[in-house]
Amino acid sequence: MSSLANERVAYFNGQIVPESQVLIPFRDRGFKYGDAVFDMTRTFGHRIFKLKEHVDRLYKSLAYLKIDPQMSSAEMMRISEEVLERNLHLIGKDEDYWVGQRISRGVGESFSGTQNSGPTVIVECLPLPLKNRAPLYRDGIDVIVPSVRRTPPDAMSPRAKTHNYINLILADLEARAQDAEAWAVLLDQDGNLCEGLGSNVFVVTEGRLLTPRSRFVLPGISRGHTIEAAEALGIPFAEADIDLYDAYTADEMFLTSTSLCICPVRSINGRTIGDGPRAGKVPGPVTKKLIEGYAKSVDFDFMAQYLRHLA
Amino acid sequence: MSSLANERVAYFNGQIVPESQVLIPFRDRGFKYGDAVFDMTRTFGHRIFKLKEHVDRLYKSLAYLKIDPQMSSAEMMRISEEVLERNLHLIGKDEDYWVGQRISRGVGESFSGTQNSGPTVIVECLPLPLKNRAPLYRDGIDVIVPSVRRTPPDAMSPRAKTHNYINLILADLEARAQDAEAWAVLLDQDGNLCEGLGSNVFVVTEGRLLTPRSRFVLPGISRGHTIEAAEALGIPFAEADIDLYDAYTADEMFLTSTSLCICPVRSINGRTIGDGPRAGKVPGPVTKKLIEGYAKSVDFDFMAQYLRHLA
Amino acid sequence: MSSLANERVAYFNGQIVPESQVLIPFRDRGFKYGDAVFDMTRTFGHRIFKLKEHVDRLYKSLAYLKIDPQMSSAEMMRISEEVLERNLHLIGKDEDYWVGQRISRGVGESFSGTQNSGPTVIVECLPLPLKNRAPLYRDGIDVIVPSVRRTPPDAMSPRAKTHNYINLILADLEARAQDAEAWAVLLDQDGNLCEGLGSNVFVVTEGRLLTPRSRFVLPGISRGHTIEAAEALGIPFAEADIDLYDAYTADEMFLTSTSLCICPVRSINGRTIGDGPRAGKVPGPVTKKLIEGYAKSVDFDFMAQYLRHLA
Amino acid sequence: MSSLANERVAYFNGQIVPESQVLIPFRDRGFKYGDAVFDMTRTFGHRIFKLKEHVDRLYKSLAYLKIDPQMSSAEMMRISEEVLERNLHLIGKDEDYWVGQRISRGVGESFSGTQNSGPTVIVECLPLPLKNRAPLYRDGIDVIVPSVRRTPPDAMSPRAKTHNYINLILADLEARAQDAEAWAVLLDQDGNLCEGLGSNVFVVTEGRLLTPRSRFVLPGISRGHTIEAAEALGIPFAEADIDLYDAYTADEMFLTSTSLCICPVRSINGRTIGDGPRAGKVPGPVTKKLIEGYAKSVDFDFMAQYLRHLA
Amino acid sequence: MSSLANERVAYFNGQIVPESQVLIPFRDRGFKYGDAVFDMTRTFGHRIFKLKEHVDRLYKSLAYLKIDPQMSSAEMMRISEEVLERNLHLIGKDEDYWVGQRISRGVGESFSGTQNSGPTVIVECLPLPLKNRAPLYRDGIDVIVPSVRRTPPDAMSPRAKTHNYINLILADLEARAQDAEAWAVLLDQDGNLCEGLGSNVFVVTEGRLLTPRSRFVLPGISRGHTIEAAEALGIPFAEADIDLYDAYTADEMFLTSTSLCICPVRSINGRTIGDGPRAGKVPGPVTKKLIEGYAKSVDFDFMAQYLRHLA
Amino acid sequence: MSSLANERVAYFNGQIVPESQVLIPFRDRGFKYGDAVFDMTRTFGHRIFKLKEHVDRLYKSLAYLKIDPQMSSAEMMRISEEVLERNLHLIGKDEDYWVGQRISRGVGESFSGTQNSGPTVIVECLPLPLKNRAPLYRDGIDVIVPSVRRTPPDAMSPRAKTHNYINLILADLEARAQDAEAWAVLLDQDGNLCEGLGSNVFVVTEGRLLTPRSRFVLPGISRGHTIEAAEALGIPFAEADIDLYDAYTADEMFLTSTSLCICPVRSINGRTIGDGPRAGKVPGPVTKKLIEGYAKSVDFDFMAQYLRHLA
Repeated sequence: MSSLANERVAYFNGQIVPESQVLIPFRDRGFKYGDAVFDMTRTFGHRIFKLKEHVDRLYKSLAYLKIDPQMSSAEMMRISEEVLERNLHLIGKDEDYWVGQRISRGVGESFSGTQNSGPTVIVECLPLPLKNRAPLYRDGIDVIVPSVRRTPPDAMSPRAKTHNYINLILADLEARAQDAEAWAVLLDQDGNLCEGLGSNVFVVTEGRLLTPRSRFVLPGISRGHTIEAAEALGIPFAEADIDLYDAYTADEMFLTSTSLCICPVRSINGRTIGDGPRAGKVPGPVTKKLIEGYAKSVDFDFMAQYLRHLA
Repeated sequence: MSSLANERVAYFNGQIVPESQVLIPFRDRGFKYGDAVFDMTRTFGHRIFKLKEHVDRLYKSLAYLKIDPQMSSAEMMRISEEVLERNLHLIGKDEDYWVGQRISRGVGESFSGTQNSGPTVIVECLPLPLKNRAPLYRDGIDVIVPSVRRTPPDAMSPRAKTHNYINLILADLEARAQDAEAWAVLLDQDGNLCEGLGSNVFVVTEGRLLTPRSRFVLPGISRGHTIEAAEALGIPFAEADIDLYDAYTADEMFLTSTSLCICPVRSINGRTIGDGPRAGKVPGPVTKKLIEGYAKSVDFDFMAQYLRHLA
Repeated sequence: MSSLANERVAYFNGQIVPESQVLIPFRDRGFKYGDAVFDMTRTFGHRIFKLKEHVDRLYKSLAYLKIDPQMSSAEMMRISEEVLERNLHLIGKDEDYWVGQRISRGVGESFSGTQNSGPTVIVECLPLPLKNRAPLYRDGIDVIVPSVRRTPPDAMSPRAKTHNYINLILADLEARAQDAEAWAVLLDQDGNLCEGLGSNVFVVTEGRLLTPRSRFVLPGISRGHTIEAAEALGIPFAEADIDLYDAYTADEMFLTSTSLCICPVRSINGRTIGDGPRAGKVPGPVTKKLIEGYAKSVDFDFMAQYLRHLA
Repeated sequence: MSSLANERVAYFNGQIVPESQVLIPFRDRGFKYGDAVFDMTRTFGHRIFKLKEHVDRLYKSLAYLKIDPQMSSAEMMRISEEVLERNLHLIGKDEDYWVGQRISRGVGESFSGTQNSGPTVIVECLPLPLKNRAPLYRDGIDVIVPSVRRTPPDAMSPRAKTHNYINLILADLEARAQDAEAWAVLLDQDGNLCEGLGSNVFVVTEGRLLTPRSRFVLPGISRGHTIEAAEALGIPFAEADIDLYDAYTADEMFLTSTSLCICPVRSINGRTIGDGPRAGKVPGPVTKKLIEGYAKSVDFDFMAQYLRHLA
Repeated sequence: MSSLANERVAYFNGQIVPESQVLIPFRDRGFKYGDAVFDMTRTFGHRIFKLKEHVDRLYKSLAYLKIDPQMSSAEMMRISEEVLERNLHLIGKDEDYWVGQRISRGVGESFSGTQNSGPTVIVECLPLPLKNRAPLYRDGIDVIVPSVRRTPPDAMSPRAKTHNYINLILADLEARAQDAEAWAVLLDQDGNLCEGLGSNVFVVTEGRLLTPRSRFVLPGISRGHTIEAAEALGIPFAEADIDLYDAYTADEMFLTSTSLCICPVRSINGRTIGDGPRAGKVPGPVTKKLIEGYAKSVDFDFMAQYLRHLA
Repeated sequence: MSSLANERVAYFNGQIVPESQVLIPFRDRGFKYGDAVFDMTRTFGHRIFKLKEHVDRLYKSLAYLKIDPQMSSAEMMRISEEVLERNLHLIGKDEDYWVGQRISRGVGESFSGTQNSGPTVIVECLPLPLKNRAPLYRDGIDVIVPSVRRTPPDAMSPRAKTHNYINLILADLEARAQDAEAWAVLLDQDGNLCEGLGSNVFVVTEGRLLTPRSRFVLPGISRGHTIEAAEALGIPFAEADIDLYDAYTADEMFLTSTSLCICPVRSINGRTIGDGPRAGKVPGPVTKKLIEGYAKSVDFDFMAQYLRHLA
């Protein structure tokens, strides 16, 4: 059917099917318990970014939860590329995709007496919200630090990328109740900034680039890529305990994520980042250099792309 | 079809359908994030137990996550009763059901640009695993305390019953890697016993009944019912900080849950509960009285039912 | 002079002088370190409220900081009454005063070689901000929980009323950056609600009145008075660990303080308190009863007074 | 008047006046709440030390508390130099000054309905207590670790230099109740040594110089200067978690501060630092080298100056 | 031998022998690891106090460490009484004994390949240090709160009475380095007072008797006996979180232990308990009543006995 | 006697005597309180390993507990060598010894009125359990993470090697109740892996060698030796916060200790270390290189020795 011809497809337990046919039994543990993991990369100009690194991280999340995907990581990569391939014709030339994998433990046996039916495996594409986020590159992100603290590692390691997001959703609900466009960045149990829903945070202070230690933080691949860019540019960098004093006195601040790459922050808790005539002007000089370095290393000007999608 | 005639039905977004037709779009936030809540009661001799209390608690979980079910609690109760009614003919006279409600935030708008399509609402029945658990009433449960700690309330309140269970699943994986039949009971951040996956814990020491304070603990309705039974029987009771010293020196220990009601514990971390000639004999005298009191108050001998299902 | 005739007076180190003459040397430790304590009561219809209880608490704060006021509590009470007496003619019939005492350690000797010159003692009156706060009684207070946590007791006990308020000011700055009229209520180190800048918090859930345990909380005299009112009215009451789950699912919420007595809360973190047709209508039924009970016990309808000051 | 001619002057809200005229209204928030920040450098042989670094840090403290000084940092430096200039004739050739700035939020509007009258700005000089502290350079400081813990960063960041000192004063009261000459060095929430009232701590163990990580510690400029001296001298250095085991087994220990520069510690909790024939002899060899390196870099033998003031 | 005739005897692994023959192999785990438990009661006028309660607690400590004494508690009581009997002739009429049991895990097998040789069991008497402690009843105890915190329950439960005392010894070393006669009372992980080396602490505030919650505290039998005395006398009592604010503002304070029964505290951290003309006079009125109630209930005036031993 | 001729000797308070004569009075504080320290090295082919480093660490433990051994470290080394010398003839050519020193505070004066009789000093040898542990080198160690957490440094520093082992024994009891051959590795208060009873833990991830930061960890000399071996081999190394995510996703894991040197780990909490065809094969490639590097640096193939003792 023509409508199906225009529908994205996804891999679902052995087959590539239209997305509307990717339907999860309600007793799947991924639905009942969020007992699943995922990972997500993106394309730059339709080329996929560090697929191997993301799939490797996916297999670490699987190992952490002892979920067996019944598939090698090479096969997972191959399928990811195929799903992307079959969806590329559905987006415009100046658009790009997220490409992600999701594996739940399946229906399982717990509590139900049912046989374990094996994992549920999905590979999907989703267009990046370029238009939606374009203003953030022009104006900067407004960050709010919620009262909710990041789940500590001895309860569930923030290093694994799972389907249990309520801690981060509670944080977002708090931030967005105050400002519908704000992004939450949480504190860890010690009162240091750690991360937001899918994003890592960096500050620039007196020319030094700092980001939270990795203990309470998903080791973001874009975070790592940014650190590499800083090293290439000779910008001094360190992991550090970053509390609100550092945030309120920073010269620049930005977030990184798969989709954002690097996106400047304008304010935190209502305090404009930086001061003097430049206050609130984004991106600041070090952030600008990093954005350029990042773009060069992926051979794609992601910021220009975002800005082209401004209404 | 005859096969459908023998299939359980469930309520799904406005209709009662066969369970196999309750299928969740993979972009539902309940699947992607575990962004959903549930509650669960049971029947005793096909009569539903404290439905109002469970549905009231469900609406508190909804409020905590700011999910709007678009339905009154009275309607939710009515549907629950209807779903039960239409499934009762599928179980034997000496069997009983769990009856539960699940509400996710739906597909939502985050990250996808899609319109929010409203919540996903499911009401379901599931036969109690009477045969499976029958040996526990004869032998007692073996409890293992895992190294994983219960998620603290400032990250996500344990008082809400959500679809984010990985913290508890990690605990179970630890316990079951050592003993496939063991149940995990976790410590809270202060090192006190709190709860297991869906169960509350009690100890009896020198004639006093103790259970963890409610801070790190889902305020189980069966827990509350047990406390009422203790009061009716004149057994001294208190909420307390219960550490491993209390557990290792307890005279009796038991778990409560919707399905278990009260089930004796035989050992914790390999230490037999109680000592002398009675060591490991379950249930202990106070537990026995509470089981009888509980059974009387629900007018149903749940323990006898379990034991009748011993192979 | 006529201008002085219209100026409030205050007690200052042995004399009663116009307020504009109460000037603190900049090397006073009260200025340099906030090394001072205070207490504050109010009048109801020009009659002073529980002066002895407030002065007794003042002397506990002095003992905690080992500051010697060089004056008995009886003398402190007598001066407080005199200062009030001499200021009463300056306010209208339907206005009332705060009456407070402040004692700093004085210039001291630390670091300067100077002789310790004895404490600085001030007794003052200040008109209650009736007009300013009147809308809160009509609409309810909007509470925001900031990311800043209350100073823990092993650093500085929240039970002493000192001149070190930066912790609470940081909390207020966070809340007011989002909503200029919002009040901050902080979490303690365990993630439980504790108190705001000068206010205590109560929730009503299923007919029970709850307030945070006293560990992280100044034992407010208005808080105590409210508890007494609840007891007189037969409203079940308990100190409890109150986390955001309790707050988001509460039927009613209110703040107490010397000036507020009892003032209803409309929302917390953007979530309207209570639900159904009554959602956000303040005060709720239990709060209303407590306001009436409180008013009766002080023989003064403070809420009516506030509402009379609505523009 | 001749008496005024001999009085130190200070900058006070736009004017340079005799210190006795720097008088703070008692409703200034700096007095009521300690809602103010300060910084403090010193002179070496009447030459001011790293004024820019100290004023830069002052502006970070201002940013943290969102206090607007209504003055540029260049202007603040200029005034500081002028105030020093006008006070230099009042001290002897072998004496030196502290030079400090204090900015409170002013009277403010909170609670009083009064208009915000702008900040209170003071720049002052104070002679260093050379005579008082001279014995410390001969004998070493006796350190006591109090039970009070340093305020954690999520309540109020120790990196900002504010007028809220009660946490540190409580620590000093504990130490001095045992030994009137002792100095308190506090533990942080994790049980590591952090800092004292205005001082940083270093230990030397097996030739390595260690100082607490900066998380719970004001990043002292003298601390930084000492680290630079160590680097210049090739002494291995690291920030580290330093607990009482490290302290009790250290070969040498010393404190740094603006006024002390580097001053040796003789004992901690009654335990003599170092052992064998050298036990308690101060300064130890590494400390001695660092004192010399520090003196050389500021071109001033501060230790000799202190020792000349021994009675 | 006459010398042996004057030597105390003790039970040692099956025999009653002179104390000098109770010698532990150095590979006994009680020596190498402190892997042992004990309990200790006393006599009043040569009559043993609550032996059963103490032996019951001993068996709880044994259960906690999973040490098998290879002896019933009845037998342990019988031996304790016999050992006391055989030592009574060695003390004066106005003297009394501690009577204690110690059980180590024995040589064990760990690390040595040796067969486990069974537990080491000792029952012993020791004269109470009446003369030594007599001044405490006249003057009161001086308490110092050390920086060392009580071991938390998730590392080792303070409710078990074991041979691992280094945590408490470190606390005593800190206190006694400042004042050789001072007693340490430690804070728990939350900054609340918990207990000293073998003693429990109580405060009296506005007529109410308070003692720390039992979480971080050995549930002392003398503590329990004191609570019973308070109940008998109608003195209001509660377990509470007691921080230094409570201690510094208390009207009275005292310690309890097996040997002390109830002994008044004169000061804490150099702060005299109570104020006004009565400051530092011990015992305070409530303490006095409790001492009398305690003495009456054991039919022995322990305080008079102590005071008779004043030189 | 011939039997004595075959008995090992030990140093005991000034004399070298047969081990069976090293008997500790039961009132020695080392027995009653575990108030003692020790250290332990081993021989490689009858040559003693880093004796000076171990004795230096012993003297740090003594300093931490303020126990005076009344003997220089040089004398302690001399005695250690002599005791070894006199015991070497008792073991086979392919066997080796632990060589250890133990010093308790002696009988002391506390509570007993007795004079302090000086320290108890023991120097001993013990054959390594080569046969017992040989299978670990063939199969790898199975590690279980218990619920008990390592004692935090503010209660007792894990850096001192004392006779207080109950925390670690409780951990072992938990692990061995599940699997009699398993080794416990504990989490610290932050939920990071720290150490086991006498062992340090390392993980290898993507070619990098990681071990827990030293805060909660005895700075093992074998741990240090392993790090040196890694540096010599050019294997990237870092101290890090290592949580269960790191453990479950590690490519290799091993323990180090004086006796083990380096011994591979096969599984943790039932999860096989590493994956693919090599899963559970020990040692992994990096571990193998480190074992070889370690062996080379001590000029002794310890692993071959262990494997020769396989039955």
